[in-house]
This record gives sequence, structure tokens and C-alpha cells, in this order.
Amino acid sequence: MSIGQSIPRVDAWEKVSGRAKYTDDLVDRNALIGKILHSTIANGLVTKIDTTEAEKIKGVVKIITCFDVPDICFPTAGHPWSTDPVHQDPMDRKLLNQRVRLYGDDIAAVIAEDEVAASRALRVIKVEYEEYPILLTPEDSMKEGAKLIHEGFPNNVLKHSTVEDGNFEEAIKETGLIKFEGTFVTPIVQHCHIETVTSWAYMENGRIVIVASTQIPHIIRRIVGQALGIPWGNVRIIKPYIGGGFGNKQDSLYEPLNAYMTTQVGGRLVKLELSREEVFFGTRVRHGEKIHLETWVRPNGRLVARSYTAYSTQGAYGSHGHGIAAKGTNVFRQLYQDEKARKVDISTVYTNTAAAGAMRGYGTPQAVFAVESHMEDIARQLKLDPLEFRFLNVMPVGFTDPFTKNVNWFDSFHQCVEKGKAYIHWDEKRKLYQNQSGLQRRGVGMALFWYNTAVWPISIEVSSCRMVLNQDGSVQVQVGETEIGQGADTAFTQMAADTLGIPWQNVHVISTQDTDITPFGTGAYGSRQTYVGGAAINKVALLLKEKILRCASEYTRMPVSNLDIIDGNIVLTTNDNQILCPLAELATETLYHVDHAEHLTAESTAQVKTNAFSFGCSFAEVEVDIPLGKIKLLDLVNVHDCGRLINPRLAEGQVHGGMSMAIGFGMYEQLLYDPKTGRLLNDNLLDYKLPTMLDHPHLEAQFVENYEPTNAYGTKALGEPPTVPGAAAIRNAVLHATGVGINKIPMTPHILFEEFKKAGLL
Amino acid sequence: MSIGQSIPRVDAWEKVSGRAKYTDDLVDRNALIGKILHSTIANGLVTKIDTTEAEKIKGVVKIITCFDVPDICFPTAGHPWSTDPVHQDPMDRKLLNQRVRLYGDDIAAVIAEDEVAASRALRVIKVEYEEYPILLTPEDSMKEGAKLIHEGFPNNVLKHSTVEDGNFEEAIKETGLIKFEGTFVTPIVQHCHIETVTSWAYMENGRIVIVASTQIPHIIRRIVGQALGIPWGNVRIIKPYIGGGFGNKQDSLYEPLNAYMTTQVGGRLVKLELSREEVFFGTRVRHGEKIHLETWVRPNGRLVARSYTAYSTQGAYGSHGHGIAAKGTNVFRQLYQDEKARKVDISTVYTNTAAAGAMRGYGTPQAVFAVESHMEDIARQLKLDPLEFRFLNVMPVGFTDPFTKNVNWFDSFHQCVEKGKAYIHWDEKRKLYQNQSGLQRRGVGMALFWYNTAVWPISIEVSSCRMVLNQDGSVQVQVGETEIGQGADTAFTQMAADTLGIPWQNVHVISTQDTDITPFGTGAYGSRQTYVGGAAINKVALLLKEKILRCASEYTRMPVSNLDIIDGNIVLTTNDNQILCPLAELATETLYHVDHAEHLTAESTAQVKTNAFSFGCSFAEVEVDIPLGKIKLLDLVNVHDCGRLINPRLAEGQVHGGMSMAIGFGMYEQLLYDPKTGRLLNDNLLDYKLPTMLDHPHLEAQFVENYEPTNAYGTKALGEPPTVPGAAAIRNAVLHATGVGINKIPMTPHILFEEFKKAGLL
Repeated sequence: MSIGQSIPRVDAWEKVSGRAKYTDDLVDRNALIGKILHSTIANGLVTKIDTTEAEKIKGVVKIITCFDVPDICFPTAGHPWSTDPVHQDPMDRKLLNQRVRLYGDDIAAVIAEDEVAASRALRVIKVEYEEYPILLTPEDSMKEGAKLIHEGFPNNVLKHSTVEDGNFEEAIKETGLIKFEGTFVTPIVQHCHIETVTSWAYMENGRIVIVASTQIPHIIRRIVGQALGIPWGNVRIIKPYIGGGFGNKQDSLYEPLNAYMTTQVGGRLVKLELSREEVFFGTRVRHGEKIHLETWVRPNGRLVARSYTAYSTQGAYGSHGHGIAAKGTNVFRQLYQDEKARKVDISTVYTNTAAAGAMRGYGTPQAVFAVESHMEDIARQLKLDPLEFRFLNVMPVGFTDPFTKNVNWFDSFHQCVEKGKAYIHWDEKRKLYQNQSGLQRRGVGMALFWYNTAVWPISIEVSSCRMVLNQDGSVQVQVGETEIGQGADTAFTQMAADTLGIPWQNVHVISTQDTDITPFGTGAYGSRQTYVGGAAINKVALLLKEKILRCASEYTRMPVSNLDIIDGNIVLTTNDNQILCPLAELATETLYHVDHAEHLTAESTAQVKTNAFSFGCSFAEVEVDIPLGKIKLLDLVNVHDCGRLINPRLAEGQVHGGMSMAIGFGMYEQLLYDPKTGRLLNDNLLDYKLPTMLDHPHLEAQFVENYEPTNAYGTKALGEPPTVPGAAAIRNAVLHATGVGINKIPMTPHILFEEFKKAGLL
Repeated sequence: MSIGQSIPRVDAWEKVSGRAKYTDDLVDRNALIGKILHSTIANGLVTKIDTTEAEKIKGVVKIITCFDVPDICFPTAGHPWSTDPVHQDPMDRKLLNQRVRLYGDDIAAVIAEDEVAASRALRVIKVEYEEYPILLTPEDSMKEGAKLIHEGFPNNVLKHSTVEDGNFEEAIKETGLIKFEGTFVTPIVQHCHIETVTSWAYMENGRIVIVASTQIPHIIRRIVGQALGIPWGNVRIIKPYIGGGFGNKQDSLYEPLNAYMTTQVGGRLVKLELSREEVFFGTRVRHGEKIHLETWVRPNGRLVARSYTAYSTQGAYGSHGHGIAAKGTNVFRQLYQDEKARKVDISTVYTNTAAAGAMRGYGTPQAVFAVESHMEDIARQLKLDPLEFRFLNVMPVGFTDPFTKNVNWFDSFHQCVEKGKAYIHWDEKRKLYQNQSGLQRRGVGMALFWYNTAVWPISIEVSSCRMVLNQDGSVQVQVGETEIGQGADTAFTQMAADTLGIPWQNVHVISTQDTDITPFGTGAYGSRQTYVGGAAINKVALLLKEKILRCASEYTRMPVSNLDIIDGNIVLTTNDNQILCPLAELATETLYHVDHAEHLTAESTAQVKTNAFSFGCSFAEVEVDIPLGKIKLLDLVNVHDCGRLINPRLAEGQVHGGMSMAIGFGMYEQLLYDPKTGRLLNDNLLDYKLPTMLDHPHLEAQFVENYEPTNAYGTKALGEPPTVPGAAAIRNAVLHATGVGINKIPMTPHILFEEFKKAGLL
């Protein structure tokens, strides 16, 4: 069995040696170059575009403006399509927009023979605008009389929703309850994948082919079809290796425009590669949220009733929209169980900032930051042990989500917390750091998190797979689910190998998706791939194995019931697994059989109608320099129950990456907009402060392995959860060290200075 | 229905616009360049190779010699593998050969950073040889004491075989029989595909990927595995568009060496592109044959007994070997039926010339030239009408091949000949040209041909197909059978469309084969693809249709029995084909179905255990300038019964191309070797006289369409047959014009001058 072993990544050698080909490595050098003209106002209307001078520039092939593109509004969110309009994503943008909604909106595009001509042309295109006041926050946008960013959305609210479990107003009437309130603010951050948004497109036999750095090739096909108003089968998306996505590439970004560009130059190849700046200001970001929590609790710490009110900054376009705020509310509603009631009131609000979309964690980092900070504050004020307080209220074993039917099978929270406590020396340090008074103080803090795997029943969860047997007994595996750097291909390799009974070295996962031939799967998001893709791999491997054993039965003259495949051999199970022949021999005989030659392949679709909770925690230790307003992160541990580990070393890698994002989210990163112009001020990796290696302590990843019963391989979400609890754990460690709870992240010196001053520490 | 319509080629636009990508268009410009060092002797042994100077050249990365390569002899012929050693092809060459067997044999190779460095290195490698006498013809090679070109083949005979039907010696004892003899010599010719032999190879995840201009990607995979001694699944072949093959690329040419090259530079990309000269002297050629016919006939023209003795020039390596001579004997044995007996004695003989392999017609152009020239001579001498004489003896309707069980269902010969006669005005011109005496004389001649489709039961005939339904009701089709310029993809499109019941525009054939993912099919040869590939397409289209109708039944609540797909709509057959919904709607609903989402695809292997005779004729009209020794071809018509025409215009194109090759074969082309050195003298398109447009009359292609009962689409071989009868028809027209039968082709002025002189015309 290879599952559970840390086999090397199947793409390690290619990637380490620099030989793996990414989108831009594959483009023909004679490609035309597409470049986009971005608006220089944040809210308004393009009234005129004069391309006269630009068209005179040698090498300019074609200029397209917002007045030329199809009058079609399309969605960009990378969700599976739904034929039910209620489940469809907002369709609120065109390929190029006359109605400008952010500084940097796409208003025209140049196609030229080379980069220089394209850039020169951009500089001489003259644009006239009608300008409107800039709305940078939900507060601005919702103000009485604010200009509507999109027609049909009063007060600029993309969506508002409420949920009430039990009767909140009744519940808080209980005598003796203590009320707590807190408001928590999280920043707009960007994914900062290494490979910028890149694609190239051309036409072949009247169809559009797009090679793109995307997490979701099959979804992009559909969206391009919608955006151009052409049959979806006329679009072909090819996804090579990709240099990160983290959810930004779970959106259709510039593939539709790139597709349109090639149609405007007779199908010639056009490359459209964004600069880092364009990625920052013009692609997707994490929703900034402002979350207000109100909690009614008994003095013994039992939660009775809570409310959660949030405003989510959507930015200029709908993208994933309200889904992010909504997923966050599940953290609130399920991580802890109120005895009587809880209610939710959330609004997702259009603003003149970058469109917010999917980003690793999908609303849960924001919600966990709020909920776990707030829980820590309550425990502190009630003088309860923060862990005991949490365990008094945490989702119990056996809890069943009434909507998804998802069951909490295990006592993961206790198991994870025990490991985290042991690693960080919780009990000792909680005591040790209790009464500090110097200018440098240490503290430990922690946070639990809630996450659930995949997206059923909000959307369909479907994955198809095809396997092809070679003459040497090796197998190709094709899935629509994408390797985006996380190691999916390696996990798939291990799954296929184990179910087929062959060495993992004999499994060749086809890493490139090509929507013309790759079985349909929706791609990388929702931490769904090992869970849902695994179901498809299991189903198809069993189908292929059944075919192989049927042929083996003919070849060996033994009944199928007495045969199995072990380590690449056909064995007789009734004779102590005696080897009858290598699979290679059988495969060759079968393929070239004079009487019944057959190429053994199998293909099917698996639909998954379950999901699985994936829980865990972070524990952090910090040293705070009060006068400097500086947090030094001394130690950070994440403990995850993601079911059985398919590949421990890769799992560890996933966790490390997520922890790093949590550090950035909590301590360093935020997009800053100029309030006068609406222009993004820090649209590059110099001014946008990603944590570097120097800002990282040792990142410890530990696991609790409860075999997930709803999955063939016992696995569940690990892709996103590692990003979720870190910020709150660090914040709570700072609270432990200083007594000051920082409710706004990132916890930069600027914020800390103010808060410490307010608290009288300075 | 699209079958029977001349829809445009599906790849027409790409190819006409110059946008279609061929192997060399796709290579990365940073590829290392491989070049081969060829021997400068024709027969001998490399005793030493000194690469010292070459290795000093800047840019040289690696030099490999015949002393370095694996000690593995491998086959090159592009046949399906057989696990039965008796049916395997000769394994008689290594990647590089110390034992030199032709002038230009591969003895070393250079891998360098660029072309210049590689070429410079080749020039300074010093080679020492031990030389043996040169053997350029079967006569030379079979001489007592001749040096063996390959050990284990006495007299240099690769294979010798005899067949006797009836008792020849008894049969010729019949009194009153007239004996005729004739010896016919055909040239060694080359395929002259526009795209030279080109490939590039690199390693990915420890496996070898080769992008190659080949007709037979799945077979190349197997051969590369054999040649390098590695599991076949570790090899991946990708075939882009290809610029012609005609059988030369039905051999493994340099893919194995290219694969080995990349393994010697750590998996770096190495391109190996042959020059035109290398293609001429070092790839495959058509077997030159010397055929002696002896015929015993009654005065009334009834054939009683015949014998056929042939020597086939194999060249330096085995390649397709004896199969070519053997296929030729089927022309002799089946086209005409002797009343009592016939016998065959054929030898395929190694020589120090280019290895002969598959070439369009596969031995039948040689045999038909001999048989149809000889039949014409007999008719003339017996003063019988040549057509009546032929029809007295031709294979009768209902004839069943005792070996293949192949049945002659139709009276194709009469039907074809009637059309040919009418076109060429046979009866008038036979009379008109009867008594000419000038220096310019005209004549008409004709020839029948025999061909049978595909290769069963000599080899397996198997084709696999996969179809993938898109949301818009369009379909991708993948087959292992290759588009090599002949229009296969278009024919497949029409077949799939008709069986599925969708417009042909909605069928997208994946033209690129990739052995990792393309269903197994053996490729383009034996005029098998419409016949065998068609079987797979039919089988899989029906499978997919069954799945679609099952879903349609759920969606429309009508029983499958009452549903059909017509013109891309689900219709109710019991209600006058009332449209229930577009297939697009059903496909979309099915793919995204909340309860049972499914990506509808289908895949299967079709094994074909039949084949089909594909008959026809050529009629030619010539004007011979006796003193100039020059034939002017005035008119040429081919009439084919290839079953139902899938695409009449493409069929016509196939025939035109074949007729052109027949003209070259009969009148212009031959490889000429220097008897002193064994060096090929005319290894380029200037000195090798391909007929040009100026040498072509109007080429008339006509058809008789008898629906082939063994095929789902009523089709059978058309790829190769057009090359077969032309040379004999022209030769017989010259005979009609001049009274001189030319038994050696090409009928160049040099030959004609001698023959006319001998006949007293000069």
C-alpha cells in the first residue's frame, strides 16, 4: 500500500529541475501580445475612447474598446454550473466595461505584434470619463444616495441574508446571562501566487483554444462560452502546470477576454499575461469583513444565544459574492453550539475596490478570527480557562448538520488540542507568562477552527476519471481535478495504485487537463479534490480492476472470485496469493489477443452527496515588543484531523503553506487604497508585505488521523484549513502576553501602537 | 446524413492558412540538436571511432557511438505486435550499428547546443572501417560466398517461401497449352513525403516523451520500448499533424535513437530532424522486385497454370521484409484464376541498399505491373481482345479467399472497366491507333488491380475509440487511427455524426494522438482506417447514443424504444419525429444534474476479423515520341470500387495522389546506386525525378459504389489502391502505340531507346 507513505511528489523532479512547463513556457514566440487599458478613475462612465494615435503605431494589430465587445454580462465565479438560476453566480460584467467600477477597470485592449508596440499604444489611447464619487467601503456604498455600482442592487448590497436558529429574542431574556460584544475587522488581502495570471488563445478549426493558468479548466470552458455567447463545445481549455492559485484562479479572470481577442484577429495566437500590478489591482482578493458578535452566556461559560452581523467587502464585481460571508457564518453557527438560539445577519456590499472572490479558506479565516478572538475575550473576562470554556460549548461528537447531514464522527477537537497543548507546553507557559511587566512580554494563544470539505449540497460535487492500461501493466489516470502545486497528482497516484493493486511508480497521472478529452471534473477548490476526486478514482480503479480480472480469469482459467491484483501481479487468493502472471503479461496478451483484442480502459463519473467536517487548531507563542509595536512569532503549531493522511510529507507541506498565509493575514498583509482616487497603493510585492522566511518561526504540523467514513480513502479537507486558525491564535497569544486584544488585523505596529497606548501600556 | 457528401476537410482551414502545427513547429527553440554520423562505406565493420576532436567543439554536449548503445536488436516494421514470435518482424538492427550494411548507415550521433556545433562535430569524428565487397542486388547477395549482411541468413535471403495451388507439373502436361514467359523489373523508389523524418524527445517524470511525425504512434511506443529495453508504458508518443508518410512513417525510423539521445543528456529535449538526403538514403524505400512469370494457357485464352518467381530487394535491414513480396503474390494468385494450378516462389534478399519497407500499395504495384503487363502480352500474342481475355480469367463474383474468407461480392471488375472504357473511348481508340507508322504514335492501355483492405488475419485488426459529449451536444472523437493528410479525420467526423444523429459540424475529432490517452489503434497503413477505424467509431457512437437515450428517457419520460437523435435533437419517433428537446439541453441537464450528474462518454475496442476486396482499373492514353524515347501521358483514368464513398471529393483526392505516384513509378522514379561505393547517387529532389504538374495529364477519378457488406459504413480500401494499376496501364498503352512491351520501369528515355532499337523502330 502506498497510501500513508510519503512517496516523493510525482512532479518533484520536473519542478525542482526547472523543466516543468507552465503556461508562458509553452507559448509560441510569434504570439501576438494583448495588453489591457485600465481606467484611471474608480467609479464612473467611459464617455469616449479615441484610439486614433494608438492605431498609427507600427505593430498594433487591433484595438478593442468597451464599445466593441458583446453586450453580454457573464459570471466569473468558478462554481459548477447550475441549471437552476437561483444557484447561478452574479452576471455583472462584460469583457470590457464602459461603466467603470474600480480604479484599473478594463476598458480597452490592444493586440500588437510585440510588447513594446502594445505598451506604446496603451499610452496614447485617449479616454474621457464621467466621474462619480468613490465608494471604498461597505459603509460608503450603503450610504443613503450613494451611486449604485450595479443597477438593481439597492444600497449597493449584492446580497443580504439572515438566519435564526431558535428564538434569539426569547433566549436572551433568561436571567443571569452576561452579554459580550466585539467587533472584528479583517483586511482585503491578495493570493500572491508566484505565476501571474497568464493565458494564450488561438482558433483551430473554428473553435477557440485557450491555454491558461487556471484551477478550473472545465468551468472556464463554460464561462468563456457564456461570455462570448457561443456554444460551450466551441471552447477548449488546456491547463499546464500552474504556479499557484489559492482561489484567485478559481475565477474566470482574463480567459474570456483572451478568447475574444483571438476572434478579433482571425484566430491568430494572442497572449495575455498580467503584470504583478495588474494581478493585485484587477484580479480577485479576499473579502475584507467587519464582523460584530454579540454573545449571551451564563456565568459558568455556557453559551445561550449569540448573534453575528457581518459586512463583506465585495469590491467592484460579484465573483463568488455572498458565498464567502455565508460560509463564514457556518463557523459561527456550528463550531460552537448555543443552548438556545443564534442568529446571523450578513451583507455583501459592492465597493469600488478589487472584486473579492475565492481565497483559501473561503470566508472561514475571517469568521474564525472573529469567533475565536471573541471566545478568548469572553473566557478571559469570565476568568474561565479558555480551553475549558471552548470545550463546554464546542460542537459535540455525533452532531449532525441539519442541512448537509454532515456528521461529526470523532472527538477531533480534544484530540487535536491535546497535541497542540503538548507541543507548545501550554499549561507551563500559560502559568509562566501570567504576570509579566517588562516591555517585552511573551504569551501563548490558540484557536480552534471549523471547516467542511467540498461544496455539496450548495453545488453539485462531481468528478470523472478515466484510466488506461498500458502493455507493461502501468496505468494512465486522467481526472478533471487539477494539480495546482498542492500535490494532488501524487495523492491521486497513491489512491489509484492502492485500489488497482499496482506499485505507485506504475501510475502515470496526466497532469495537463484538456477540456476536449479530460473527463469532467470541476477542479481545485473547496478542499474537495482528495475527497471528491478520490471517489472517482476509487470507482474507476475498481471498474478497471474488474475488467482486468475478467481477462485474467480467461487467461489463467481461474474464477474471478479467486483472483486479485497485488503489487502488479495477478495472484490466486485461494493459494496464499500465489503469483499467476505479471499484470504486464496479461495486459500485453489482452491488447494483442488474436480472438478478442481489447484496450482495457475504464471511465466513470462519481457524484458525491456527502461532505465531511475537517477540524483542528492552532497554538501560537509570541514575544511582543510593546514600545516597538512588534510581534515576534516564536512558535506556531497547527494540528489537523483531515482523516487518513494520503501522504504525510505532502500533508505537512500543505499545512506549512497555509500557516504562512495565516501569519500574513494576521500580521502583515492588506491592500491599501488611496481614498482620494481609489487607486491601489501597494500593488506589488515590495510594498505589499508578505511575510518572508525571516518572519516565520519553525512551522510545526501535526495530525490526528480519524479515518473519514464517508470517503473511500478515509480522507477529507486539508487544502484550505491550515490558513484558518493561525491569525486568531496569534492574536490570542498577544492578548495573553499583553492583556490587549487586537480586533483588527493585520496586527501591524501601527495598530499595536494605538491599542497599547489606549490600554495604557505606553 | 453527412456520409456521401463532400463536406470540407475538417482540417482544411488550418492547413490552407498555414496555421496547422507540424512536429517541427512545436519544438522548443532551446532544444538540443541531434545529428547522425553516417558510414562512408556500404558493407563492413566499424573498427574504431575517435571523437576526441569533436568533443572539443564548443556546444557539443554528448557524442554517442555504435560502441555505446544497448546491445539490443529491435524490429522497425509498423505492424501490430504479436505475442507469437512467428508473427514478429525481423529484429536485426541496433540504435547505431557497428556492422555497416549500407552507405550511410548510422554509426554515431552528436548532440549539441545548435546545428552548427553538431555539424562541425560530425565532420571531425574519425572512423576506421574493415570493408567488405558491396552487394547491391539480390543477384550479388545470393552469390556463392557472398559476405553475409546479417548472420543467420544463408545466401543473404531474409526469407524464401513457396506456395502451390493445385499441381503445377501435372497441369502443364495438358496438351495444346501455349506457354508464355516474361520477366519484369520494378525500381527502388522513395516515398518523398514533404515533411522529412522529424522528431523530438525529452524526459518527464522519468518517462520518455517523443513528438514524432509518424503514421503509427501506438506502434512506435512499443518499438521504442523494445529498442531501449524499457517498459513500454515508460514511453509516450505524441503525433501532431503530419506532412505525408506513404508508408515510410509506418516504420520506426529514428524515434528509438531520438529517445535514447534524451536519456543520454539527462532527459533534456533533443530534436532529430533528417535532411532530405538522409531520408532518401537512410529511411525506407519500396522494394525493387524482379518477377518472372510463366503462364500456360489454352488457345482460347483460358489460363490453366501459372508460376510466379520473384526476388525482392530488401536492402540493409529487415523492416517489413517478406510481407511485401508475399502481398504481391496475392495479386498473382487471386486477380486471375487458373483452371488447374499456380505456384509461387519468392525470395526477399538483403542487400547493401536502403532498407525497403512499407510503401503505398505494399508490394501490389510491383505485382500488378508484372501480372498486367504479362496478361497484355499474352492477349496480344494470342490475338485476343485484352479485356475479353482478362474477363475470361478474372476472379469471379462469389469467389471466397480460402485463407481470409474474404468474398468477392460484386461484379466490380466489369463495372469499373465499363466506366474506364467509356471515359477513355476505348473501343474507338483501340481501332484508331491500330496501324500507326509515324515517329509519334498513340496508344491506349489498361490494367486491372487486386487489393484487399486491412491486414487480418496476418495481424490483428483492432481499433479503439472514445467519444466525449459536451454541454452543447457536440462530441469529441478520439481514435488511435491517424490523419496523415489523407482526410481520415474528416471521414471519421462524418461517420460519428451520422451514427450519433448530430450535424457533422458538432463532431470534433482530436487529430493529435497521444499514446498516454488516445485509445489504442495501430494507425495508418493497409488502407485500413475507414474500414477498421470505422468499425470502432460505429461501435462507440452506438454506445454513446444508448447512454444519451437512457438519459433522454428519464428527462423526457418517454421510453428509449420511442426515442432517437436526429440532427442534434432528441425526437419522439412514434410522433413523426417530434422534437422533444435539443441534445444540448439534455447534455447540460445530465452533466449538472443534482441527483445523478454524469459526464457522458463512451469507449470501446472494435476488433475486425474480416477484410474486403477493393478492386478497380486504370486506363491510360499515351503519345510516344520514338526517336526521343519519350512518353507523353495524354490521359489517365482510375476507376475504383471502394464501397460507399464517405466523402466523394476526398476520395477523388486520394485517387489523384495515388495516380501521381503510379506515374512516377512507371515513368520517372528510381534510386540509383554507385556500383563502386554503394552510395546513393540521386538522394535529393533535384536528381530524383518526381513527376511534376507538367508531367501530369488531367487525372480522372471515377467510382463504382457497391456497399461493402462487412463494414458498418459500407466502405473499404481506397488509400493505397490508386497507386497500383497506373504503371501497367501506361506500359500497355505504350505497347499499343508502338508494339513494344517495356518490362522494366521506370520507362525512361534510356530504357525506351534501347527497347525501340531492339524492336527495330530506330
